[in-house]
Amino acid sequence: MRILVTSGGTSEKIDNVRSITNHATGTLGKVITEELLSKGESVTLVTTKSSVRPSSHSHLSIVEINDVANLIETLEPLVKTHDVLIHSMAVSDYTPVFMTDFEKVKNAEQLELFLEQKNTETKISSDSDYQVLFLKKTPKVISLVKQWNPSIRLIGFKLLVDVSKDELIETAKKSLVTNQADYILANDLSEITSLTHHAYLVSETEIYEADTKKEISQLIYERVIKNA
Amino acid sequence: MRILVTSGGTSEKIDNVRSITNHATGTLGKVITEELLSKGESVTLVTTKSSVRPSSHSHLSIVEINDVANLIETLEPLVKTHDVLIHSMAVSDYTPVFMTDFEKVKNAEQLELFLEQKNTETKISSDSDYQVLFLKKTPKVISLVKQWNPSIRLIGFKLLVDVSKDELIETAKKSLVTNQADYILANDLSEITSLTHHAYLVSETEIYEADTKKEISQLIYERVIKNA
Repeated sequence: MRILVTSGGTSEKIDNVRSITNHATGTLGKVITEELLSKGESVTLVTTKSSVRPSSHSHLSIVEINDVANLIETLEPLVKTHDVLIHSMAVSDYTPVFMTDFEKVKNAEQLELFLEQKNTETKISSDSDYQVLFLKKTPKVISLVKQWNPSIRLIGFKLLVDVSKDELIETAKKSLVTNQADYILANDLSEITSLTHHAYLVSETEIYEADTKKEISQLIYERVIKNA
Repeated sequence: MRILVTSGGTSEKIDNVRSITNHATGTLGKVITEELLSKGESVTLVTTKSSVRPSSHSHLSIVEINDVANLIETLEPLVKTHDVLIHSMAVSDYTPVFMTDFEKVKNAEQLELFLEQKNTETKISSDSDYQVLFLKKTPKVISLVKQWNPSIRLIGFKLLVDVSKDELIETAKKSLVTNQADYILANDLSEITSLTHHAYLVSETEIYEADTKKEISQLIYERVIKNA
């Protein structure tokens, strides 16, 4: 089985020296990849520069990306040639459009015009006391996966912060439908420590629970890969 | 001589999953630290989580910081107890204040009010097509150094992008005065590759030139440390 795993977090450039980064160490994707390799599976790992990585392995290929646009062009051909996508990467949901002084925004008649501007300077000046950054939504990468390959098995990830179990499961169920995912791994940032990682693996009909990254990786192997 | 080196780039949180990061690998600070250690000097290195680091060494202490506020509280006592500060860290010049939907900003009567708001949600919602992030200037850390310790020898760094030699030197000279620095290492992002790193070490009366990170570190040792 050809398995595609994504890990780490994307970064969207503001200018040549600054960017907005989604925090993600890539640890969960690393643990999942190692579990799959240990079971004899082949893995293509799409990850980011700063994320942690598994040791090199004859059944492992690694592809590096940086931002959402780069992720989309990299992922499309890979999704079409793999059987499973385990999409644990934290993907930026907004990307910078234009950054300017607060005074200019305050004095503008039509704020919409800023949404069509671009910074031409390579390093935005830092003289004014306040600045304003306009951002636009990025394409939802996970929602493109089944358009690219309707028969791929898709495992999405949903990270919330400090919510109830019900809200976590409900959000996962919605994501299953919206993104035509087969499973959603739903977790809460407040329940992740260096030693533990509480999560639910949610499908349309089932809910499994795990308490560590190792358990999550075993659950994914048992439920999604082995019985596929 | 007690030498303090800073390296890497700070990150300012937008919320629990996103932050604005200054790109900086920490490589130059690492090379400078290694050069100083090889000459028998003792170094305290203040750096960030994702930056590259020298191997451990009996004359090296490493302190980790993340954002500007954290840098200031860490640096003040260290500046007071060291003889030299080589401040190569890329410090964020703006920090997020408040992020909200574009529509809310568009319909607001007084944009100033957004500068006093704070996001209470732990992960800012991602439903609207456009968002607006308000940012405020951070304190200029380098300008505080001589207030904390008037007798410390201060080497500041100035990174510009794609400017002329004259502009680079002029900016460095201004920075010498503004920040009461003894030297400014002025460099241009477009002249930094994996193998080369063109830079000028500028004092009130002298300008030295270097073409690699190794040469920069030797120049700093020869001009700033050895003859001090």
